[in-house]
Amino acid sequence: MTKMKSDTWVFTGSCPSQLGTVDVVTRFMAESGNYVDEIHSFDDRVQRQFFLRIEFTPNDSEFSVEQFNAEFAKRATLFDMKWDLSPSSKKERVAILVSKFDHCLNDLLFRVRTGQLHIEVPVIISNHPDLEPLAKWHNIPYYHLPITPDTKLAQEQQILALLKDYDIDLTVLARYMQVLSPDMCRQLDGKAINIHHSLLPGFKGARPYHQAWEKGVKMVGATAHYVNNDLDEGPIITQGIQPVDHAHYPEDLISKGQDIERITLFNAVRYHVEKRVFLSGKRTVVFSN
Amino acid sequence: MTKMKSDTWVFTGSCPSQLGTVDVVTRFMAESGNYVDEIHSFDDRVQRQFFLRIEFTPNDSEFSVEQFNAEFAKRATLFDMKWDLSPSSKKERVAILVSKFDHCLNDLLFRVRTGQLHIEVPVIISNHPDLEPLAKWHNIPYYHLPITPDTKLAQEQQILALLKDYDIDLTVLARYMQVLSPDMCRQLDGKAINIHHSLLPGFKGARPYHQAWEKGVKMVGATAHYVNNDLDEGPIITQGIQPVDHAHYPEDLISKGQDIERITLFNAVRYHVEKRVFLSGKRTVVFSN
Amino acid sequence: MTKMKSDTWVFTGSCPSQLGTVDVVTRFMAESGNYVDEIHSFDDRVQRQFFLRIEFTPNDSEFSVEQFNAEFAKRATLFDMKWDLSPSSKKERVAILVSKFDHCLNDLLFRVRTGQLHIEVPVIISNHPDLEPLAKWHNIPYYHLPITPDTKLAQEQQILALLKDYDIDLTVLARYMQVLSPDMCRQLDGKAINIHHSLLPGFKGARPYHQAWEKGVKMVGATAHYVNNDLDEGPIITQGIQPVDHAHYPEDLISKGQDIERITLFNAVRYHVEKRVFLSGKRTVVFSN
Amino acid sequence: MTKMKSDTWVFTGSCPSQLGTVDVVTRFMAESGNYVDEIHSFDDRVQRQFFLRIEFTPNDSEFSVEQFNAEFAKRATLFDMKWDLSPSSKKERVAILVSKFDHCLNDLLFRVRTGQLHIEVPVIISNHPDLEPLAKWHNIPYYHLPITPDTKLAQEQQILALLKDYDIDLTVLARYMQVLSPDMCRQLDGKAINIHHSLLPGFKGARPYHQAWEKGVKMVGATAHYVNNDLDEGPIITQGIQPVDHAHYPEDLISKGQDIERITLFNAVRYHVEKRVFLSGKRTVVFSN
Repeated sequence: MTKMKSDTWVFTGSCPSQLGTVDVVTRFMAESGNYVDEIHSFDDRVQRQFFLRIEFTPNDSEFSVEQFNAEFAKRATLFDMKWDLSPSSKKERVAILVSKFDHCLNDLLFRVRTGQLHIEVPVIISNHPDLEPLAKWHNIPYYHLPITPDTKLAQEQQILALLKDYDIDLTVLARYMQVLSPDMCRQLDGKAINIHHSLLPGFKGARPYHQAWEKGVKMVGATAHYVNNDLDEGPIITQGIQPVDHAHYPEDLISKGQDIERITLFNAVRYHVEKRVFLSGKRTVVFSN
Repeated sequence: MTKMKSDTWVFTGSCPSQLGTVDVVTRFMAESGNYVDEIHSFDDRVQRQFFLRIEFTPNDSEFSVEQFNAEFAKRATLFDMKWDLSPSSKKERVAILVSKFDHCLNDLLFRVRTGQLHIEVPVIISNHPDLEPLAKWHNIPYYHLPITPDTKLAQEQQILALLKDYDIDLTVLARYMQVLSPDMCRQLDGKAINIHHSLLPGFKGARPYHQAWEKGVKMVGATAHYVNNDLDEGPIITQGIQPVDHAHYPEDLISKGQDIERITLFNAVRYHVEKRVFLSGKRTVVFSN
Repeated sequence: MTKMKSDTWVFTGSCPSQLGTVDVVTRFMAESGNYVDEIHSFDDRVQRQFFLRIEFTPNDSEFSVEQFNAEFAKRATLFDMKWDLSPSSKKERVAILVSKFDHCLNDLLFRVRTGQLHIEVPVIISNHPDLEPLAKWHNIPYYHLPITPDTKLAQEQQILALLKDYDIDLTVLARYMQVLSPDMCRQLDGKAINIHHSLLPGFKGARPYHQAWEKGVKMVGATAHYVNNDLDEGPIITQGIQPVDHAHYPEDLISKGQDIERITLFNAVRYHVEKRVFLSGKRTVVFSN
Repeated sequence: MTKMKSDTWVFTGSCPSQLGTVDVVTRFMAESGNYVDEIHSFDDRVQRQFFLRIEFTPNDSEFSVEQFNAEFAKRATLFDMKWDLSPSSKKERVAILVSKFDHCLNDLLFRVRTGQLHIEVPVIISNHPDLEPLAKWHNIPYYHLPITPDTKLAQEQQILALLKDYDIDLTVLARYMQVLSPDMCRQLDGKAINIHHSLLPGFKGARPYHQAWEKGVKMVGATAHYVNNDLDEGPIITQGIQPVDHAHYPEDLISKGQDIERITLFNAVRYHVEKRVFLSGKRTVVFSN
């Protein structure tokens, strides 16, 4: 008999490394009758920090987060542990920002529609009108907020207002193609995922495929990372690659890179909403599957 | 400060799925002062079986296996758990069986010599004399035991006697190229790893690259699996692949396949001796890294 | 200056191996003023057969196929060469057959819409009504032709009639999920591409992911092949793979396999319409890029 | 009947793009009775440069290079074509420079010994004595030339003298770990291949795996490139990659990277000696197989 995934919850926690960090959680799970389905842990020997992710099935359908938190808090405090609880059935509310390219948007919406990606997309925002028909077909409100050097900061305020109005948990820059202002970056820090079309830190900035072609590299790739206040320097979540050769001109790299970009971005979004990603300084811990 | 890997131990255990299986181990670890460095678990929803691997650092250098086992047994019995303890510093004694091809043997010995593969190779056995110089350079006894249809069973008895004499933990068939007798298979069941040069179950039996070429496949590969009493049907540990095209003749596939074969076999041996492989019916659970 | 791809033509030819096979074509190209942009050849030492693909830019915009063919015929006859000419600007007319799964259909239509796949899709045919909305959004006629054991042959006649009505060059079985009758296979021989969700010849027939799971393989894949009169045995065009592990249940393999299936099918269709695929007995010669 | 590879020759040529560049060679081949086994060409639309590689079987065993060159020169001059002829049976003389790491050296020597790599290694040079036993077992002279900041230039002169004495065609820096002086680089320009353990241009300079770890990348790799007078900036021949995750410390990256490094270096050396690599500005054209 296969258990329904939708019944499960995800526990994530982190604390300084010390004896008993796993046990304090697994013991609580056992004593409170919660069945551990899957456990991932990582004890960072350099940072001396411990990371834990547990998928569990509550002992009954009346599972109370408040009660879990209240009781677990007494034990967690001894380990200085920060934790979070999230039902697998919950869909995060994800805003997608796009420009004119639609391969990433199309891919994300397709996976949402077919159940591969367990999120809600309540709003799509763009500085161009081009992708409105695609949004419309999926019955998702589309905001066309044009941008000029003069209106950039105002436009960003409009975006931030929309994210608030739509109660957005995560913002995905699906080839949005705009350099965000430092203030915008700060506001989205850790709550937005960008896809860059290179194997960062190689080829930062504009036109990475052209840079890659100039260098004559034999591999190109894509990097999904959190937005932070340092352009193209946010913590990397995942990367994908593609072999290329001399016969690929920059326009071929752009075309061939699309499959890598969209799969890489999809994986990053999925890891994030499934609570598989932890920040550890400038690096990430990712319990992929 | 980076902890020395050589201080650690590996706990492996398995039992029927039920509430508290992780906790019974992690609690014991915490209470006995053993520091959990890494934990992998898998709860098989189909077989209803639980698998656990923990790397831990004992609380002091006087760690006693007997004491651990005696004390843990009281708890394990409630879960019908079978377990094993093994120090990371221990080197398993591995016999390597070869024929004339030396790419796998050369690779394994190189990795032993440079510390990538933490085993001892006390003996190499072959039905041909060709690879003796390589064995000699590594100061490893080499037994040339020729085989004919008439002497096959007697030769196998010689091999089994050598495995016993040399106190062998694991036997590796590094392109040994002989079909073992049913009795030999039975004796090596679960204690021998074979490398087959195809993506099993495709192209079982002899000359798999020739079979692959006939079919015009665009991918070839290699499969490392445990020997059991059903030829080329033992539980698969790991597989590797290589894209090919129309311009690859069977002899090219043989040549190109060597890199895949040797890396696949190395990985399988490493997973096995690091206690990362569990048998689950005809399948394996592998906590790779 | 980058030459426009749309001006080019593709020459494909094949003949028994002998001295001068390349030269007879390249000399004609040079003498008739056609500029060779790209040349691929393969001389099969086993079959003693020569294969050639040349992309060229005609000497003027008045390029006449008839004249080329008439003049080249005099030379080709000495080599018993069969050849074909096709303008890169021409879009083949491709019918897509589907069932209920839409990951392959969605992917193909997306790539057509964005110019990655240079074909026309004048008709979509299915034994289920589910994917009609997707067809509608792309303004493509959708025929729902239900199938029962009793109506199978009649339904196939309807399909063949549609393929004729719509003047179809290539039929793509994008997870159509029906075993075609021998007669249907014969009619589509070499003119239809199927995507099978396994690394053929492994796991032929139904439910390949379930078969793969039973065997405990560590790699799954997909195979795009021409339809012929032997089920799942048609010449392989291309294959894709994906590593998996013990934690992937059959339903996970199905879900994870979708990315491989759709990219593998897309590549096969692209290779076919770009005249990169040659049949050579039961195998294919594919000049990929 | 399979033709013997050892009978073949390789023609390589390059010239400015214009009508008839392929034909001038293939026609000459046909007229002089040389059988074309394999042909690769690339017409660089950006550089307007044409590259050609042909493997051919001469019409008789008395094939004369001088006669070929003399006769072909009359035609080549019209195209300003530079060309080279090389028998497949010829083994280039390759010097290997090493430091203390032996994974690349061991791999190259193994492939030479087993016939995968068709070269001669008449000399191994190192700034450390560690790898002498390995050289000795292969009966290859080993020169230990220690290096200090004061003796660097003198030591390089010793190396250059050895390369001359041993009549070396190609020098391979198989993890030599020394920054060559500008003069040494100039002397080896285009005649030496280095393996750098990162996906250049990312992580140039020292300790690239440590740099990669700091950045938290999810892919590491290796780059084989020609030495030129700009450190780690020589034209890239080929690259390899390996996925990694948060659990890999710098020492794990070093260990895991070895397989990628050695295969990448092997491929680069093989491509070079098989005349598959052409320089095109700062990039390479590589007709791999």
